[in-house]
Amino acid sequence: MARKSKLKIIPIGGLDEIGKNMTALEYGNEIIVIDCGMSFPDDDMPGIDIVLNDISYLEKNHDKVKAVFITHGHEDHIGGLPYFLKSINVPVYGTRLTLGLVEHKLKEHNMLSKVKLVRVRAGDRVSVSPYIGVEFIRTNHSIADSVAIAVTTPLGTVIHMGDFKIDTTPIVGEMIDLARLGELGKQGVLALMSDSTNVERPGYTMSERNVGKRFEEIFKQHANRRIIVATFASNVHRVQQIINAAVANGRKVAVSGRSMENIVEISIMLGYMKIPEGVLINIDQIKKYRPSQVVIVTTGSQGEPMSALTRMAFSDHRKVEITKDDLIIISATPIPGNEKSVANVVNELFKIGAEVIYRSLEEIHVSGHACMEELKLILALVRPKYFLPVHGERRHLVQHARLAEAVGIPSKNIFKLENGSVFEIDTNSAKVTGNVQSGRILVDGSGVGDVGNIVLRDRKHLAEDGLIIVVVTISSREKRICAGPDVVSRGFVYVREAESIMEGIRGVARENIEKCLENRTTDWATMKSQVRSGISKYIYDNTKRSPMILPVIEEV
Amino acid sequence: MARKSKLKIIPIGGLDEIGKNMTALEYGNEIIVIDCGMSFPDDDMPGIDIVLNDISYLEKNHDKVKAVFITHGHEDHIGGLPYFLKSINVPVYGTRLTLGLVEHKLKEHNMLSKVKLVRVRAGDRVSVSPYIGVEFIRTNHSIADSVAIAVTTPLGTVIHMGDFKIDTTPIVGEMIDLARLGELGKQGVLALMSDSTNVERPGYTMSERNVGKRFEEIFKQHANRRIIVATFASNVHRVQQIINAAVANGRKVAVSGRSMENIVEISIMLGYMKIPEGVLINIDQIKKYRPSQVVIVTTGSQGEPMSALTRMAFSDHRKVEITKDDLIIISATPIPGNEKSVANVVNELFKIGAEVIYRSLEEIHVSGHACMEELKLILALVRPKYFLPVHGERRHLVQHARLAEAVGIPSKNIFKLENGSVFEIDTNSAKVTGNVQSGRILVDGSGVGDVGNIVLRDRKHLAEDGLIIVVVTISSREKRICAGPDVVSRGFVYVREAESIMEGIRGVARENIEKCLENRTTDWATMKSQVRSGISKYIYDNTKRSPMILPVIEEV
Repeated sequence: MARKSKLKIIPIGGLDEIGKNMTALEYGNEIIVIDCGMSFPDDDMPGIDIVLNDISYLEKNHDKVKAVFITHGHEDHIGGLPYFLKSINVPVYGTRLTLGLVEHKLKEHNMLSKVKLVRVRAGDRVSVSPYIGVEFIRTNHSIADSVAIAVTTPLGTVIHMGDFKIDTTPIVGEMIDLARLGELGKQGVLALMSDSTNVERPGYTMSERNVGKRFEEIFKQHANRRIIVATFASNVHRVQQIINAAVANGRKVAVSGRSMENIVEISIMLGYMKIPEGVLINIDQIKKYRPSQVVIVTTGSQGEPMSALTRMAFSDHRKVEITKDDLIIISATPIPGNEKSVANVVNELFKIGAEVIYRSLEEIHVSGHACMEELKLILALVRPKYFLPVHGERRHLVQHARLAEAVGIPSKNIFKLENGSVFEIDTNSAKVTGNVQSGRILVDGSGVGDVGNIVLRDRKHLAEDGLIIVVVTISSREKRICAGPDVVSRGFVYVREAESIMEGIRGVARENIEKCLENRTTDWATMKSQVRSGISKYIYDNTKRSPMILPVIEEV
Repeated sequence: MARKSKLKIIPIGGLDEIGKNMTALEYGNEIIVIDCGMSFPDDDMPGIDIVLNDISYLEKNHDKVKAVFITHGHEDHIGGLPYFLKSINVPVYGTRLTLGLVEHKLKEHNMLSKVKLVRVRAGDRVSVSPYIGVEFIRTNHSIADSVAIAVTTPLGTVIHMGDFKIDTTPIVGEMIDLARLGELGKQGVLALMSDSTNVERPGYTMSERNVGKRFEEIFKQHANRRIIVATFASNVHRVQQIINAAVANGRKVAVSGRSMENIVEISIMLGYMKIPEGVLINIDQIKKYRPSQVVIVTTGSQGEPMSALTRMAFSDHRKVEITKDDLIIISATPIPGNEKSVANVVNELFKIGAEVIYRSLEEIHVSGHACMEELKLILALVRPKYFLPVHGERRHLVQHARLAEAVGIPSKNIFKLENGSVFEIDTNSAKVTGNVQSGRILVDGSGVGDVGNIVLRDRKHLAEDGLIIVVVTISSREKRICAGPDVVSRGFVYVREAESIMEGIRGVARENIEKCLENRTTDWATMKSQVRSGISKYIYDNTKRSPMILPVIEEV
């Protein structure tokens, strides 16, 4: 019976914007989930800490969900797990480093003991049910132990590439398993989902190893300076190369920033990072060494306000004070939206007089995602019947679809899905048959999903124009004002004639309330609305501004 | 007497961040001002419309200020004029197109009749006083009629380059007057201020003419589509080239977006744009033509929320509805900070199914600022005694200083100033001798400078965590609560247990007030502060959030 089922591929997140990646595959009565990411809020979401996927569809079909398979340990692939597992507690499969990071995350949420984690290795195959099998295929990416996932179903094999690049000279582990991808391609692949992040870049992504060579050159050139390198904490290979360059130049290494400390600890423990005895020192010990003997590896490559590098740059770090004799290397490219923050940090460092190396020209960073030629190579090797570009905004999916056409996949077999699209494949055809509920769930503090559009709209209004509160106490029996009106403002512009404006607001409020009392209006909503519109007009006429106006009426 | 004076160069704005350019030159009892720009607010300035320079120093020395000289008509060089001239009404010198744009701006502020505008041409020299002369030198930039300014003083000549590039094949007018710069260089230049915007880019900036060729190719390739091109309104040459390509392909041109309409009108009137009879049509008429006969030139190349292209993309434009048969060309590079907005617009256009050309790869845009080799050429031609990199953030000034050293200017003669630095030159030496008051003045609505740090801080707090207002009416005679406490919230997260939280807040407020009344506390500030801290703790314990808390006490 299940043999005649259709296969549904449902991207829950990761399309239309990069982040919070999650894909559901459904066959018969079984659903498996690939990745479970989160993303960080945009500028138009004030006060929001993180953003999750709406998983209503999976929650409704809770009984069908069998497992989560994780491609690699980045936040946009694992960050949603604690929230997901609270409502859908299924086993999580991943490679060693990936699970190491997942464990750390679950520990922070006090959930580690409640979740079943299954460690796999690239090349392993696991059987989810008689109908669904999953195989892990080694890839290269900016974090170690990344895999693609091949799902076998009675209708054929579906490959999800995860995030990948082709690195013929990786730092740790082996090259992406192109042979296995080619083998599956020869056997026939039903559908391919592939990473669209860098589809706008021609050519090939450089090997991580290039960065290592460049570090060694820079370390030699600046033998007399203390060196501080900021990079992504999760880029274990990058950190390893910084350490290698430090060792080659007789320097000690100190680590700064909570996530950097965590990942270095986990990586050493699991053997993904090799550091000779005595090289790693505590950040408290750096003063015992000459500047030329020290390298500090730190977070903050995106100019994040609270990160270690930002605090150092603005002289707000308790343990590291930057001087004009330091060299700072920012080994990362700003993620779109972070350009200004990074530039601010660079400017501050230059003001101190330090030397800063931060430009892509300098070859101090390479991307973890495949560029055009690599993407075409994967398409040509796998030769899928259906192609689904994923991990990108609409513009990336459009360009990736064009690459696929160039490689010979008929355009009718290429589908640019949206989050929540239900893509259905049967033996003869494939099409989008509908949509499941999907979207963003905003997390603010300890609450999940309790910030709605009204709250966000209010926050934006408050932020842009501030607030005027008018409070008045009324005796409803005597039909008179007993106290007030009093006016309080916050975030409203301080105008030169502030006092006279406040006096004017009180006057308008009193006038409107007295009119209501005379007319025997006892409906407070009406009274408030008259006060609000009277004040609103008065303020606009006098200041050309529209703050939020909140009348509060007390009754004695 | 004045002959023995020192020369002071004071950058009022334009350093430490790009925007609101303004430089003061002071010799004896005379000050001249070069440029008078504004800038747009950063993300951390909610509700702010524009940002101006603090001109306190010039206001204090009002009597000394003789004139403003404008290098070109971009907002970051002219946008501050209406505000400046309201307090310091001196003549404004500029070339024809520059003054055309200044006139339009002053008209909007009802100030045109009150200001003296003096039109000059490249090559002109004017005498400000027996001691100060000013010469205008032709440059190339992304707006026509740009000039550099050479100021002659008894101590020597100071050259301010304005914004420039070297375009050997400009669209309108002639190439930058390198010969005159070289001549001045041979005679001896005391100080050079030069544009640092593109100092991080190697090589040369391409000619504007390249873009024209590319437009013609694209227009031919897409002969059957309607074409919509978004670019900077002020880039008169770019708009001219779009029109040329339209004419060559037998298309009509319609203009959309207020600033684009203004500048096209001014440019045609002043002869900076040549459009054959019958080519320009009103946007209302586009439906009378087939799509293949129309080009729409529009604002919105930066993804600005209210711009014409953004409204078109989000199907919110009254006159232009984008279809899958349209081609949209975004002929601009995102200014840092705008990357996400531009990407959102591109994604929306792709969702409609339209074709979009937007990448720098496509050669549909060139910068208006000189790259490394051009900057070195100017340095080598002018050979100034002192070099002051300007028009850039700190990182740009640092890199530009390095270029100058590479060209042979001794590092002791290169000064990286900050806004407000007083750079003093006398016959023997030059140094920074102090600082004048400088900084940002925020404009919100009709108010100038009335949004201070407290207002901004409150706005940010309101935006991130929202607000809880607690109102209570007290009889101070009877020492009891007559009404309330009532709780109102805005922008505060809607929690699942919202009602019980609100009830809890009321309870905490009542408890604290009653305690105060029992203790005969009659100081309301004390009472409010106890209520505030009690509620703050209660909310944090129950929601892990810290909204702004505003207690209001009414007394009957």
